[in-house]
Amino acid sequence: MKVETLRELLIDELRDLYSVETQITKALPKLVKASSAPELQQAFELHLEETKNHVTRLEQIFDRLNESPKGKTCEGMKGLLKEGEERVGDGGESEVLDAGIIADAQRVEHYEIAAYGSARTYAELLGEREAVRLLSETLEEEKAADAKLNQVARKVNVGAKAA
Amino acid sequence: MKVETLRELLIDELRDLYSVETQITKALPKLVKASSAPELQQAFELHLEETKNHVTRLEQIFDRLNESPKGKTCEGMKGLLKEGEERVGDGGESEVLDAGIIADAQRVEHYEIAAYGSARTYAELLGEREAVRLLSETLEEEKAADAKLNQVARKVNVGAKAA
Repeated sequence: MKVETLRELLIDELRDLYSVETQITKALPKLVKASSAPELQQAFELHLEETKNHVTRLEQIFDRLNESPKGKTCEGMKGLLKEGEERVGDGGESEVLDAGIIADAQRVEHYEIAAYGSARTYAELLGEREAVRLLSETLEEEKAADAKLNQVARKVNVGAKAA
Repeated sequence: MKVETLRELLIDELRDLYSVETQITKALPKLVKASSAPELQQAFELHLEETKNHVTRLEQIFDRLNESPKGKTCEGMKGLLKEGEERVGDGGESEVLDAGIIADAQRVEHYEIAAYGSARTYAELLGEREAVRLLSETLEEEKAADAKLNQVARKVNVGAKAA
């Protein structure tokens, strides 16, 4: 898609994020199953609920902008999630695997932090205040999810070292 | 590769980063060509020099650990760079395209910030002080590159809005 205006770029980025969030709702249940530490499983379960909410928020934004959320597949997220699936498929010692799963999940969170940051900036410049509000809510939850993973990692990594 | 110890996880993550940095050294010259704003081109040129240095630092770490840097292709970065290439291929108004290129580049930076953060944590736990030092240097440069892109974006986005 040839992008000629900032509004078109915003729509394009939001469609990318819609594909991202949809892919993540499918990946998170697999990560709950693949991980061993109860704190990590709980963190993924909580984030799955938040992610469903992120999808809804994006649909609300598309509604307001009179655009469709569909039409894009985020290849970046596809690659990131493929890496995570390969790691889980390879297996290994459970605490070391948990540490690796956290590393993969933090790459995903950071992708989202960057992408929501860009989209929010465009929405601000375009005066789309409701979109800015909704994107900010999600961005804060992504940052909190990354911080939570840091916290869980501290314990998991020490266990992985002892393994 | 089945990963059984934290040391093996560190090696695995470093190989992922070696693939990432190698891919980025090939992508950055294309971004210099595709972008229009001189500040953006300069930021990419500077970051290309830094990235070559990141490759060298990783080789130094592998040397110390008596391991080979090769054997892994980072599928996540492949996907991220593919998205960027598609955007450049689609074209569009130059300032809007610059804004989009910055958004893609910041996803790449955030991937690296997450990945270097994980690798450094493992190196710390394993007492690999020289690796920690080298990974910290690169991590700081990735954060600075992201901050620089934020700064360039402020001007480019305003231009894109006016387009």
